[in-house]
Amino acid sequence: MKTVYITRREHFNAAHKLWREDWSEEKNYDVFGKCSNKNWHGHNYTIFVTVKGLPSVETGFVIDLKDLSTIIKERVIEPLDHKNLNLDVPFLSGLLASTENIVIKIWEEIEGPIQEAGGKLCHIRLEETENNYVDYYGGNEPF
Amino acid sequence: MKTVYITRREHFNAAHKLWREDWSEEKNYDVFGKCSNKNWHGHNYTIFVTVKGLPSVETGFVIDLKDLSTIIKERVIEPLDHKNLNLDVPFLSGLLASTENIVIKIWEEIEGPIQEAGGKLCHIRLEETENNYVDYYGGNEPF
Amino acid sequence: MKTVYITRREHFNAAHKLWREDWSEEKNYDVFGKCSNKNWHGHNYTIFVTVKGLPSVETGFVIDLKDLSTIIKERVIEPLDHKNLNLDVPFLSGLLASTENIVIKIWEEIEGPIQEAGGKLCHIRLEETENNYVDYYGGNEPF
Amino acid sequence: MKTVYITRREHFNAAHKLWREDWSEEKNYDVFGKCSNKNWHGHNYTIFVTVKGLPSVETGFVIDLKDLSTIIKERVIEPLDHKNLNLDVPFLSGLLASTENIVIKIWEEIEGPIQEAGGKLCHIRLEETENNYVDYYGGNEPF
Amino acid sequence: MKTVYITRREHFNAAHKLWREDWSEEKNYDVFGKCSNKNWHGHNYTIFVTVKGLPSVETGFVIDLKDLSTIIKERVIEPLDHKNLNLDVPFLSGLLASTENIVIKIWEEIEGPIQEAGGKLCHIRLEETENNYVDYYGGNEPF
Amino acid sequence: MKTVYITRREHFNAAHKLWREDWSEEKNYDVFGKCSNKNWHGHNYTIFVTVKGLPSVETGFVIDLKDLSTIIKERVIEPLDHKNLNLDVPFLSGLLASTENIVIKIWEEIEGPIQEAGGKLCHIRLEETENNYVDYYGGNEPF
Repeated sequence: MKTVYITRREHFNAAHKLWREDWSEEKNYDVFGKCSNKNWHGHNYTIFVTVKGLPSVETGFVIDLKDLSTIIKERVIEPLDHKNLNLDVPFLSGLLASTENIVIKIWEEIEGPIQEAGGKLCHIRLEETENNYVDYYGGNEPF
Repeated sequence: MKTVYITRREHFNAAHKLWREDWSEEKNYDVFGKCSNKNWHGHNYTIFVTVKGLPSVETGFVIDLKDLSTIIKERVIEPLDHKNLNLDVPFLSGLLASTENIVIKIWEEIEGPIQEAGGKLCHIRLEETENNYVDYYGGNEPF
Repeated sequence: MKTVYITRREHFNAAHKLWREDWSEEKNYDVFGKCSNKNWHGHNYTIFVTVKGLPSVETGFVIDLKDLSTIIKERVIEPLDHKNLNLDVPFLSGLLASTENIVIKIWEEIEGPIQEAGGKLCHIRLEETENNYVDYYGGNEPF
Repeated sequence: MKTVYITRREHFNAAHKLWREDWSEEKNYDVFGKCSNKNWHGHNYTIFVTVKGLPSVETGFVIDLKDLSTIIKERVIEPLDHKNLNLDVPFLSGLLASTENIVIKIWEEIEGPIQEAGGKLCHIRLEETENNYVDYYGGNEPF
Repeated sequence: MKTVYITRREHFNAAHKLWREDWSEEKNYDVFGKCSNKNWHGHNYTIFVTVKGLPSVETGFVIDLKDLSTIIKERVIEPLDHKNLNLDVPFLSGLLASTENIVIKIWEEIEGPIQEAGGKLCHIRLEETENNYVDYYGGNEPF
Repeated sequence: MKTVYITRREHFNAAHKLWREDWSEEKNYDVFGKCSNKNWHGHNYTIFVTVKGLPSVETGFVIDLKDLSTIIKERVIEPLDHKNLNLDVPFLSGLLASTENIVIKIWEEIEGPIQEAGGKLCHIRLEETENNYVDYYGGNEPF
């Protein structure tokens, strides 16, 4: 069984802050540092979505990358790009906008549509900067 | 005369929007598109600052990169990093926060301090994303 | 006069070969080496298009990057992406498909449309690989 | 047991198309889109080959990277670089030239020689562009 | 259980050579090639340190990246940056300075401090160049 | 006159220190900081060499990149790669090994051979790290 993993990279640019409404500005600064700036800051986020499966005998594809790209664009890029992650995104509403929390919510948004398109989502990487990124395997722990 | 150009790269992450208060939300959207999102968006900005001069016979340096880095950090990174470019930065106050306008203001902030450190500022590149960046030569037009 | 240079990066993936029909296969190989492979090879080309001007007082823009991107997409990416540079591109027809020759022809394609959009094209960089690229300033020699 | 994974990156530039001879041009276009362009297109492919093992007490090496690089160059880069993946490569003959199918065939080419050199191949990544790549673990599914 | 993996990237620049004192210069050259240059050579090393865990309900963090960065800086960057890996680093003393051996020793240096900070180290990548890097999972073999 | 600029990128990995024999270790540290480490440190240097000229009607080339690459390899990479820049390189002997000084000496090494190959050297960029690099135009000051 020659399982292959295929990855599509996309980008979005967004504002956010790390901030709890039930904490004072001082407490927020103590815990979140400059990431708590009241008036927001932002990032060029990069997302890598990986789907695994057997290459189709008919097309050579694990999944048609156009389909995968469309799902990511409709479910992730459109709602998040040039948006405020704390204020503008229904599926992140009320969430502490850490990269860890965001990647879990993105998984929930795209796992179903990818399955409908015949693929099996197995990994998302979300980069906040070149120095900081998170990986999520749907809760699995490959290592 | 063996003039050499030396460049230091630094980063800052900030929120902004392209927005004119004297325009309606619709007019702002017509002109600035998704960059006008009312609740802001943001970027990982990268800045390259270039200083030219003759390498010192004593040190081999055009300018001590530690000095150049300190100037950029004090004058650019500290005021802009994890900030809102429209709201939080005194030297950008009232400015339309386009990359073009920001690079001109940054030049004005660091040209003097670099000269005091014995260097001659000759070029700034400011990248908003890997796909979009501006170059400024202090108004000079090398090409 | 605060002239600023703004650059937009785009990509296209294409096949080509370095080949002269009036030469034998041996002569082609002697001069062009593995780039003369009869059955073609290909590259992920990256193009950087730079426009200079004064930032508009109204918008802060030298040129609207959406307009610049549209011109590059219509005039360069659509005709070249996923194409054969020797066979499929009218404005490269009959040309030896070296990076040097291609960049000159791309300049001729986009200089006019950029001028109609209110910008002044001043630089194109065309990368064939990370190790090989050409720069063209419309025939000017800034250095 | 301190197993370490070591990776060598190499490059090749090649032409290909996604195309089935038993389908019409229209059917090919419907399924493969612009990747079906009759006259080919191409890419700068990047390959990462990973070998695992215990560092030798004598040399500190899992495998001598010069040996690994030689195997990749002889078995992958020479047959594929500046070639047409559909026409010029014996071990890809008759194959639908998707990245998925190519990575499986490359594995078969280099697994034996790496084993003869004392290493255990465990992962290949093949990048078609910065936005699209596949990973193959010899059919294993680590996640 | 929504385990997330978070990674921090840092850099250090160091000299080293691959060299055994109990071998002649010729034997060292035979085995280690140009890496055995008697007078050293050097690299810009890049290190990626990955910690896994559940995002805190209170902060959204698997681990505070400032804490992780501080541990890496104190335990890895300060002792290795702008140093000679064969001569200047107590915890590498007497070691053959291969990337494989170095990554194992770095793991031993930071595993404890990360655990004290509430995290679980699960992966280190150490890049010597863009073409050569090693991965270490504490001896685990995820694939 | 359609002058085009063509650039070739190459790499070398080397050890060096910033150090003056006529200064004490303390004085060296005061001026050069951690770059003065007595036992050396090192970098992955990247060099970009740019040649300008008219594309040949016969070949489409400003200069044959194989020739340019050969010159860089023979004159720069072979003498500097996996070497100590202070001790091992005849044409850098006695020089303070700053990036500024090195780039000037490299220019002197390759300007003649490039001219003999029919090209005109006009720019060298030498990167010590992604954050620090120098540009040299043979003493010319394009901006």
